[in-house]
Amino acid sequence: MVINWGILGTGRMVKRMVSAIQSSDQGNILAIASRDKNRAHLFAQTNNIPTIHENYNHLLSDSNIDVVYIALPNHLHKKWTIESALHEKHILCEKPFAMDVQEATDMFSACEKQDVITMEGFMYRFNPILTKLKELLNKNSIGELKFVNFSFSHEITKYLNDKDNYRYYREKGGGSLYDLGIYAINFFNFLFRDKFPKILRTNASLINSNGADLTFLATLLYNQNVICNLTSSFLFYGNYLLLSGTKGIIEVNHLTSPSQKTILIKNTKNEVIFKEVIPFFDHFKAQIDHINDCISLDQKPLIKKEETLNTINIINLLDENLRKNNIDNIF
Amino acid sequence: MVINWGILGTGRMVKRMVSAIQSSDQGNILAIASRDKNRAHLFAQTNNIPTIHENYNHLLSDSNIDVVYIALPNHLHKKWTIESALHEKHILCEKPFAMDVQEATDMFSACEKQDVITMEGFMYRFNPILTKLKELLNKNSIGELKFVNFSFSHEITKYLNDKDNYRYYREKGGGSLYDLGIYAINFFNFLFRDKFPKILRTNASLINSNGADLTFLATLLYNQNVICNLTSSFLFYGNYLLLSGTKGIIEVNHLTSPSQKTILIKNTKNEVIFKEVIPFFDHFKAQIDHINDCISLDQKPLIKKEETLNTINIINLLDENLRKNNIDNIF
Repeated sequence: MVINWGILGTGRMVKRMVSAIQSSDQGNILAIASRDKNRAHLFAQTNNIPTIHENYNHLLSDSNIDVVYIALPNHLHKKWTIESALHEKHILCEKPFAMDVQEATDMFSACEKQDVITMEGFMYRFNPILTKLKELLNKNSIGELKFVNFSFSHEITKYLNDKDNYRYYREKGGGSLYDLGIYAINFFNFLFRDKFPKILRTNASLINSNGADLTFLATLLYNQNVICNLTSSFLFYGNYLLLSGTKGIIEVNHLTSPSQKTILIKNTKNEVIFKEVIPFFDHFKAQIDHINDCISLDQKPLIKKEETLNTINIINLLDENLRKNNIDNIF
Repeated sequence: MVINWGILGTGRMVKRMVSAIQSSDQGNILAIASRDKNRAHLFAQTNNIPTIHENYNHLLSDSNIDVVYIALPNHLHKKWTIESALHEKHILCEKPFAMDVQEATDMFSACEKQDVITMEGFMYRFNPILTKLKELLNKNSIGELKFVNFSFSHEITKYLNDKDNYRYYREKGGGSLYDLGIYAINFFNFLFRDKFPKILRTNASLINSNGADLTFLATLLYNQNVICNLTSSFLFYGNYLLLSGTKGIIEVNHLTSPSQKTILIKNTKNEVIFKEVIPFFDHFKAQIDHINDCISLDQKPLIKKEETLNTINIINLLDENLRKNNIDNIF
């Protein structure tokens, strides 16, 4: 069975997703739509996409398309997810799924009503490293897990003056928390089976003149009494996950990237007692294969409504904390 | 010139300090004093210490002793530093120097009045790794420094029920912040030349029934707009320092230990671009040599009054934050 894909938007991740669809077992790209005519043409040509639509509704009206990938700025996810559902398209929508819980609830309602599959895109969840990490934790390789330190930060200030980049505008769902920190929240969801944290604190942040945070630090406590630190930033580099237990520590870098990664476990004497190299794995393709399977086999996707609502609820609350007067904003 | 040392207390670090004094260029151990007669005898015998005093004042009355090392529980530092000064002994006092700024001020006044040298013990400051780290930062090896993530934590819950261990009593200056987190503050002092942070926040903590924190998390912002995260705990293992810059990251484990350590620098692609092994270095001995030199050459010690007052002021304020109602205490 061939699953035909359409793409809304020409954002940063689209190139990778196009090649993932093209290399997927059942996927086929039919069309792309962008408000920027020249950009869409160039993009379609470079990436061998047969049809270009200058308007999103045109693409959605194409009855050959089974599923759309929504790569638009975050504040447009709601509108175009609902439009896609109304056109009876299945949907893979980039994270964050929505700006807030109300938007997400409306989006899921529309999809349920139209009986289409919808999933928030978190490609790294399809990487085998996650199963491996859970296995290592379950077999007590660092004793009892007590503290998680997750930083997902990269320096992208060269784009700071790019007015087209939604990441620098709060009203478009920008900011490092929504763009990068959300991966930490998603990972905590994965670890703690979608529990809502007992405590969430926003520790510090740096906000630009458009209200978007450029750096965000938070601490969360989950029911299992595990303390989790989140760091996200557009201003510096730091892409690591450290899992501290009573008997040792697990270290992983670049968790969310498809590139080759190494899991290290060290004991309390700083000796490496376990090392496993996880080879390059195209989790973009794996995510597309998963959506294709869900469509052809009529199954529920891995990242379910409840998880997405939990993720958005948490980032909303952290963001609200940030806006309260008693939070230190660092300029 | 021989410098004769006396030791007050038989705490955890004393064994190491005894061997440091014995191996130092000018140092000689004359006596140890402990309130626990049997313990003192056993300790003196095992460590070849000629004289045992059953009371601290006896030791201080020994006119052959030039300098005392104070290894008593933190709440006794003030009394015995002042007593030592009154007996015209020079003083190396374990960190934290005092319970609060007022105590420390009184202690320094007494020492100045008696014209004796006094220094807060931070042995790792004599390790060559510190100069190396500053050199790497100064030559821009990770671009501009923006974020420091320092965790000094080890699991020592087996001692949790030891009523003799002052670490588990707030009124004796216990808690992970005063015991371990203070190293992070001291390191930030070193990095930022004793500046007082613009912002300090206590993020989370876990307090035992004696009011001592077993885990402590804080965020500080220094004048250079560098955000610093501190984690200390008695409940899990995590002994790392991560320095994030605009172009890369410096990783060091077990910074405060004399053991062999590796400095790694990674670029934003997670590639190791610099590696240097710092061999085992007995910074306990180096600290003793330094105090001996200060005494014989009548020089000021490395860690000065202003720095110690700054350190204590910061940990006091972080601890006060913790006690305020609006801070989440995690049980």
